[in-house]
Formats: sequence, C-alpha cells, structure tokens
Amino acid sequence: MVTRADIHHNQVHGTVGIVGLGLIGGSLARRLAHAGVDVIAWNRHHEPYAQAARDGIRCVPDLTDVAAAKPDVIVLCNPLKAMPAVLAALEPAIDRDVTTLTDVGSVKGMVRDQVMQAGLNDCYVGAHPMAGNELSGWSAADPALYDGALWAITVDDRTPFGRFRQVAALICSQAGNQAIVLDDETHDRAAAMISHMPHVVATALINELTDNPDRNIAAALAAGSWRDMTRVALTDPDRTRAMVDEDAINVEALLRSMAARLTAVADALQTGDDAVMTDFFADGQPFRDYKARLRAADAVADTPDSTRRFTLDIAADAGSATDWRRVLLDSARAGERIVDIDDAGTVRVISRAAFPEA
Amino acid sequence: MVTRADIHHNQVHGTVGIVGLGLIGGSLARRLAHAGVDVIAWNRHHEPYAQAARDGIRCVPDLTDVAAAKPDVIVLCNPLKAMPAVLAALEPAIDRDVTTLTDVGSVKGMVRDQVMQAGLNDCYVGAHPMAGNELSGWSAADPALYDGALWAITVDDRTPFGRFRQVAALICSQAGNQAIVLDDETHDRAAAMISHMPHVVATALINELTDNPDRNIAAALAAGSWRDMTRVALTDPDRTRAMVDEDAINVEALLRSMAARLTAVADALQTGDDAVMTDFFADGQPFRDYKARLRAADAVADTPDSTRRFTLDIAADAGSATDWRRVLLDSARAGERIVDIDDAGTVRVISRAAFPEA
Repeated sequence: MVTRADIHHNQVHGTVGIVGLGLIGGSLARRLAHAGVDVIAWNRHHEPYAQAARDGIRCVPDLTDVAAAKPDVIVLCNPLKAMPAVLAALEPAIDRDVTTLTDVGSVKGMVRDQVMQAGLNDCYVGAHPMAGNELSGWSAADPALYDGALWAITVDDRTPFGRFRQVAALICSQAGNQAIVLDDETHDRAAAMISHMPHVVATALINELTDNPDRNIAAALAAGSWRDMTRVALTDPDRTRAMVDEDAINVEALLRSMAARLTAVADALQTGDDAVMTDFFADGQPFRDYKARLRAADAVADTPDSTRRFTLDIAADAGSATDWRRVLLDSARAGERIVDIDDAGTVRVISRAAFPEA
Repeated sequence: MVTRADIHHNQVHGTVGIVGLGLIGGSLARRLAHAGVDVIAWNRHHEPYAQAARDGIRCVPDLTDVAAAKPDVIVLCNPLKAMPAVLAALEPAIDRDVTTLTDVGSVKGMVRDQVMQAGLNDCYVGAHPMAGNELSGWSAADPALYDGALWAITVDDRTPFGRFRQVAALICSQAGNQAIVLDDETHDRAAAMISHMPHVVATALINELTDNPDRNIAAALAAGSWRDMTRVALTDPDRTRAMVDEDAINVEALLRSMAARLTAVADALQTGDDAVMTDFFADGQPFRDYKARLRAADAVADTPDSTRRFTLDIAADAGSATDWRRVLLDSARAGERIVDIDDAGTVRVISRAAFPEA
C-alpha cells in the first residue's frame, strides 16, 4: 500500500504532533515551532499551554485532537509508563494514510512491542534523540537542547521506506539534526552501554556518599570529577528507573560486568598485583586515542567532515544485501551519520573519527 | 622552639618555592606570580622556564636552589612517585627556621610517611587543592584552575600552629582560596570517596565500552551523560594509578561496596525485585536534596554565606578539648571553610549548605 506518507516530499513546513510537553517533548516542540513547522501539541496537564501558545505551538484539549489534526508525524514524548494508555487512545483516532507515528523513548524494543499490541506497528518508526539533561518538565524545555544532537532511528524488517523517510525528514530537515539507523536490539544494547548502565553507576555513587560516615567532609571536598560523574544521578529517579527497567536484560549484564571489573581492581589493590593494575589502566587506551582523534578533528575547523552521497535500493527485499535497512545500519556501524535523505532514497552522510570494532 | 615561621606575619608578597611546573604546580606558580608573590620554581626539565619567566616566575637550575632561596613555603607539586627523591635532595638544603614545607598530593598519609622518613616532619604541613582537570603539564597550566578552589590542609598532633598558619596564609591570602583542616586519615577516606574510587569507576566504564562488540555504535550515541562520566578516565592513566595505589586500602573498600551495589541492582533486575529497586533509587535522595539546597543558595545572590569569627587556643595541648586542630576539624565537619586566619589564631569561616552526617 502506497500511502501519502510514502510519497511525501521533503517539507520544512509540515505539521508535527507532539504528545507530552516535558523536557524532551517541550524542547522539540519549541525547536520545530521556531523553525516554522506547524506544531500541534497535547500535554496531560495544561499548565504549559499559555507559554507554548506564545511560541506558536497549537495546544489541544484532548490527546485524540492531535491525531484528528492529521499531522505528517506524531512524536510520542510522554513518559514510558504512560505509553500503553497513550497508544490505546490514539489507535482509533489516527489516520494511517496520512500520519506516521514515532517516539523519543530511550528504550526501543519495549516501545515497539507496545505499539504492536496497540495495533499501530504499520505506521510506526522508532526514534531516540541523544539529547537531555538532569532537568525535567516544560519549565526546563529549551530548543537549544537539540543543538548538534544525533538521533537513532529504529526500524524492523517491515518498516516501509516512506515511513522511515518521514521521520528522517523531521529529524534532518525540520529539527536540523543528524541520524543513524539501527535495529531495536542494537540500539538498546548500545544505549545500555553509554547511558542506562552509567545512570545506575552514578546513582550508586551518590548512594555510596550518602551512606559514608564522612559524607559532609567528602561532599565539601567534591570537585569537578565528582560533580560530572554524579550529574545524571540528580535526574528524576523515577524516570531513570523506568529507563533501566525497560532495558533490564542489557543493563543487568553490563552491571555484572562492571561489578567484576571493580572487584578485580579491589583484589589487585589488596594483593598488590601489578599486572592486573597495569592491564586495567591500559585497557581503555583505544577509547582515549579515539577521543584524541575527535579533538584533533574539532581543532582543525577548515577540515570538513568527509561526505558521501549514495542512493538506496528502496524496493529491495528485507534481508537482501541491498536492503536499505541493512545498508543504513552498515553505514552507522562505519561511523557515518545521515545529514539528508530524499524520497528517491538518495542519502547524504558525513563521517567523523570512528571507534571501530577491535 | 619558636621559629621565624611561627611568628611570621600575614604577607601577600612573601616568597614561595614551587617544585614541579606541571598542571597543578604550574597553575599555582602562575596564580601566585600574578598576585604579586615572589615565586621561585624548579622543574625536572627546563622547557617551561622561558614562558614561566615571562610570568615573573624565577626559575632555578637545581632543586636545591629552591631551598637555598629560603622561601617562606616550599610547595611540592612533583609527581607522587618522585617524592622520595625530591625530599632526599631538599632535606640537607632546607632552612627549617625559615621555610615550611607543604605539598599538593591527592593522598596525604603516604606523603607524611615519606616526609617523616626524610626527616622533614618538623617543618611539614600537608595540603591538597581540590582543583584539576583531565589535562597535564605546563602547557595546560592556568591560574584560573584554582578559581573558587577549596584546599584541605592536613595536620597531625605535632604540627606547630605557626607552620599551619604559614600554609593557610599561602592558600587564603596569596592564592585567594578557602581551606578546611583535616587529619590525614579523614582526608584520604574522603578523597577516596569523591575522587580516587570514582576515577577507577570512570576507567572501568571506558574499558567496558572498549570491550563492547557494538562500540562504534555506542560511541556514536554517546551524549552528555557518557561524556561527563568518563571525562576523568581521559586523565593520564599513570597519574590516576599512582593516586589509587597510594590510597589503596580506602579505594579497595569502596570498590567492593560499589561492586555489591551494582550486583544488587543486577539481581533485582533479574528477579524483578521491586523493593530493592525502589530503595536503590531512593537511597541517595538526601544528596539530591543537599544539591538542591546548594543551588537555591547560589540562586539568591544577595544572601551572603553565613560568616563566623572565633579565636583558637593555639597554646592548648594536642588532644585537649580546645586543641586548635580539633576545633578546626570540628568546624570542617560542620561545613565551615576558612577564609582568613591571623597569627593570633583568629579565624574567619563561612558556611554553606552542608551535607551533615545522617
């Protein structure tokens, strides 16, 4: 079935529906409205509406009003725990011929399961903007939160190219950001590695200090390293817990691995095992080298990131060597980021210093 | 014995000797020189000398030249592993009637042991500025590194008040910073909590990513939380290892406790133990509340920090209830910071939002 979404042309001035005007949804709504996009938004409580209206955001009384406005894309920015109720309310109201559904949740596998259970998988593409801070709520919403943000777009074998293209246009053309394409499992493993597990570690650090008998002295001595390592533990703990619970299997494995690493250092400190300590401090050297390459690239302002343009076989069978999903996942694995993509499947990517598999 | 140091008057323009012009020593030397202090400095290699001279720093060819210049204070800013050799070279050259010896090492117990072995304990007071970043070397030295820094000054039962006063004058009058007084053990336990152990955790995080099969994807998705939590793992790993090795007993205990916390969360994720997860995310709430109090205090610019002035009994016996060391340690435990102190033992402290013992 070719829907309007499948043949849609790139347009900065389409209509986007936003469900939830918290930190992430509010910042996105404001950013899109400032860029001239028609934004229609709903929030569970209506306190943000007066301010949002001044930003040019059209706020509606009921969740179903967002679907009834037939936007090109609806972006679900509600809390993860509200997802089943939001999906159930949207399902009868959404016009699948017109509207593509996406979300900004930090765990993708579980959201797709919920979307499937709600019978909305045929119009769904997952997304996760790598943007945020320790604040929350509309009062902290800031269009600049998305400056320079990379989004993960998650697809499965059944994702139509036109649906994907619609979400990529939102990200690249309307929000002015970049994107990589992943499957849910790869996303959730990678997000556990660089976000969900570290949030647990940061929380464990503030628990350790809270339980420390010298905590007032220690807190007084705390400087930059402590401040930076515990910043995310100041996040609303309910939001962090939801994220960890929904990516439980990946987070669990990484926490066990981290516990083993810390125990190995403790053992080596106890026994004075020089070889273990030497290995421990050398193991991450490839990451230090990668960061040094990134810094060097940043320092040379007149050296552009390398750019490549290629055209996807958007009619290829899922699973084939030319399947557009596989080609884009390989591009992501090679360190490329999508800057622009058109309806014909012509993609422009840039690549930066990569951290290739060992 | 009353020495010149014991009767010295507060002077912004005294002479300070700096041993080692790396990040910490170089930044301090430049800050003091900019403040009009006569700074005499030695570095193992002489590459920084030409630039240092332009800052008004008097650079000398031999380590013993620093002692021969009879400065009021010599600040040892050399790497911890060079400490025994530096102390051995200074011991015959230092004029104990004139010069007080201090250092900026991040572990205090072991430095005091080394100072004792070198026979220099009678003129030694420990110090540790809570300042630094992931860079190193003279090229990264910056007087602003010390802006707003809190120093720990470490004393033992035999520290003469005049020696302590000399180092406090360097910190408060000459460097324009604030200080708290600790014993070595309290310092090393607190520093393990908020710095040494977290450095190991940050290193374990970059090791975990380096060993991750999806490391390129994960590195691409890494945003603010990952960048902040791993910044200190980019520090010279030899420097981090030296710090951890020298505070081994405290770091070992904290690593075991952290490993147990992470394992408990992993177990709860596996079994779906709601109570454990709820407790884990609630445990650090007192720290979140403390940080909120600090932010609120910062936000009200016209509310000064509360100030208190009191006079120490500087002749009291060590261990007595009025022992100046004990009075100042209690002040530190109460969240107060020394802003100024004179020869008669009159102290001015400020206090901020504290994180009192539970």
